[in-house]
Amino acid sequence: MPQPGPEFSQEFQADLDRLLRWRRDVRRFRRDPVERALLDRCLASFNLAPSVGLSEPWRIVHAESAAARAAALANFQQANDQALSGFSGEKARLYAGLKLSGMRDAPVQLAVFCDEATAKGAGLGAATMPEMRRYSVVAAITQFWLVSRAAGLGLGWVSILDPKRLATDLEVPETWRLVAYLCLGWPEREHETPELETAGWERRSAGLDCLVR
Amino acid sequence: MPQPGPEFSQEFQADLDRLLRWRRDVRRFRRDPVERALLDRCLASFNLAPSVGLSEPWRIVHAESAAARAAALANFQQANDQALSGFSGEKARLYAGLKLSGMRDAPVQLAVFCDEATAKGAGLGAATMPEMRRYSVVAAITQFWLVSRAAGLGLGWVSILDPKRLATDLEVPETWRLVAYLCLGWPEREHETPELETAGWERRSAGLDCLVR
Repeated sequence: MPQPGPEFSQEFQADLDRLLRWRRDVRRFRRDPVERALLDRCLASFNLAPSVGLSEPWRIVHAESAAARAAALANFQQANDQALSGFSGEKARLYAGLKLSGMRDAPVQLAVFCDEATAKGAGLGAATMPEMRRYSVVAAITQFWLVSRAAGLGLGWVSILDPKRLATDLEVPETWRLVAYLCLGWPEREHETPELETAGWERRSAGLDCLVR
Repeated sequence: MPQPGPEFSQEFQADLDRLLRWRRDVRRFRRDPVERALLDRCLASFNLAPSVGLSEPWRIVHAESAAARAAALANFQQANDQALSGFSGEKARLYAGLKLSGMRDAPVQLAVFCDEATAKGAGLGAATMPEMRRYSVVAAITQFWLVSRAAGLGLGWVSILDPKRLATDLEVPETWRLVAYLCLGWPEREHETPELETAGWERRSAGLDCLVR
């Protein structure tokens, strides 16, 4: 039987807009630990995410050991050096000054993978667009990001990494593909403006142009 | 100067959890139109989404004309027939009975693309993982989904499509890659259980297993 849907108040909708405005990619963390119960509550949002064919292809690895974290950090440093060498002049100077990961300080670090070979969902919705499985993982990460921010935590998504090397170093099954490396913890400071905008790298657009067909 | 961050109340956090539980992939729409101002308010959430290097690579096409909608529907029907032919027995019977798109009724239909060649952000964060641009588009869609649901609208993500053919039919630039075809409108009914679960296709997992490294 269809259930009556909930109404979401004007106040909630305004607060949701505020949450989206204050969601930031955080790279500066305090080292205080994150309580396990709080982390578990935030992680529970994964199970509420949309997934193609209900395949739930997200796979999460807690990088807790010194060895796992060192491998991830070395991976980032090499990819970041390589990226820097691709810029010159003012852009290179700017890039070198950016802080692009909180991997040295973030108390919680999660490598999030997509299981490309999951049998769950029987492939529904992923025949012509198999990337939908990875997109499902991204949707789950986005919800996790918002829930974490609402709880006062900050999240930073590191993508300056060799994804295959990280998968090897973390010894995950062959069918898992890296989608994200997430740093999570208490932010050093709060800011509403993206750090890349503050640093002069790029600016947010004011509006959205759509085509009509 | 760092701004003091906002606190989000326990009540807001509980309502956010309720929103995630009630966010559904909707395939059954009433035909009532969606007010332009409401649609624009929901679409404004795209500009608040995280994007790699602040590249904001999302590109939106409103499929409004009869020709555009007919092309998208024919595309879906062909891909869906093909998908059905890949199942047999009970699974084929189940698949044939599923309603997998609301394209005949949804008053608003958006094709969302990623501009793979945008100069914005100067490639920051997308050198080793160029898929990060597409992931940014998925994050923006996820936020749009939640904002729309909070306003009482329903959204359905159609992925049973030949993405290249749709890009051609909608005459978008060559560097745009289809990420999603979204149906938006007032849902016929509200339900907390995923339609694929109700129909017996697949079930949500109760928990989340993580690896530790």
